Amino acid sequence: MANFSATDVKELRERTGAGMMDCKRALEEAGGDVEKALVLLRERGLAAAARKAGREAREGTVASYIHPGGRVGVLIEVNCETDFVARTDQFQKLVRDLAMQVAGLAPLYVDIDRIPPGDLEAKQAALLADETVQKKPEHIRPQIVEGQLKKWQAEVCLLEQPFRDTDQSVRELITDAIATIGENIVVRRFSRFELGEEQ
Amino acid sequence: MANFSATDVKELRERTGAGMMDCKRALEEAGGDVEKALVLLRERGLAAAARKAGREAREGTVASYIHPGGRVGVLIEVNCETDFVARTDQFQKLVRDLAMQVAGLAPLYVDIDRIPPGDLEAKQAALLADETVQKKPEHIRPQIVEGQLKKWQAEVCLLEQPFRDTDQSVRELITDAIATIGENIVVRRFSRFELGEEQ
Repeated sequence: MANFSATDVKELRERTGAGMMDCKRALEEAGGDVEKALVLLRERGLAAAARKAGREAREGTVASYIHPGGRVGVLIEVNCETDFVARTDQFQKLVRDLAMQVAGLAPLYVDIDRIPPGDLEAKQAALLADETVQKKPEHIRPQIVEGQLKKWQAEVCLLEQPFRDTDQSVRELITDAIATIGENIVVRRFSRFELGEEQ
Repeated sequence: MANFSATDVKELRERTGAGMMDCKRALEEAGGDVEKALVLLRERGLAAAARKAGREAREGTVASYIHPGGRVGVLIEVNCETDFVARTDQFQKLVRDLAMQVAGLAPLYVDIDRIPPGDLEAKQAALLADETVQKKPEHIRPQIVEGQLKKWQAEVCLLEQPFRDTDQSVRELITDAIATIGENIVVRRFSRFELGEEQ
């Protein structure tokens, strides 16, 4: 009756990390189309991830990444819910990827809501004071600054940044990990030191 | 004429890191007594270190230490004057030792003059408000608090802490390294993350 093979189920499991029964059900609903089943599972995974995102995460790991040559280094704390998950290769790989992301793209904050109000106001004032903005009519300046501020936030917040050269954001990368790992995952904090930089 | 052997010179070089000629001269002045020559070299080394301590140090390395299990991690930047010294085993070992010190003894600041005034005032107020201090006559309270504040500073400042289980402070360890390496060495900053700690 089933119009899919054990190989299809295996492929789906490998690509999504979802359980055997979930994969079979998705394939049945998708009429045996692996790509369709993948979309179904992904939607469900994200829905499940959204439910998990509120759960307390106090386990996890502290990890580091030092760029070859020792001129840039990153320390990061990523939380999950259990020590068991913290030890898995999948979680450890995610943490390593995040540390390398911080080393390479030098974000200043984890997320937009973690930007200290003082920093935000200072940036806003600096953007408003900029010559090119001051040349514009006064009534449209707030709108311009608002747009520039959003752009700046997307650059300096880890979760808003594109992950490496993919079209996925770091937030989406983590949401996918929550869906496949099945626990809430939170980047708690990071430090990034660059040799001799001004503090 | 010399009342010391090549082996004495070799021993002295290994124990102090000083140059061949400096070792010979110290042995001559000490009448061939290796221990006396060691004291002489040490005094001169510290004097040289004091002269070097003002020099600009903008090279160095960013390094990390993660405690086994991944629950405590440290990122540290230590500066020296040249990239050449930064790559030496001796400098790299010093940096590793310092990172492990931070992991184990959890200092909050590099040095006393790096404690933010606000933190110092808050600690002072907390000590003064303590019940045991409040029970003492008012006129001796500032003196008690002053003593307790000094003790606290010695505990929370990396350079004031005893290095491991030696009777040497971290500051002395670094001064010795400056003397033997021959460049100014400065702990610029560190971050220490402990899994799930309150921030």
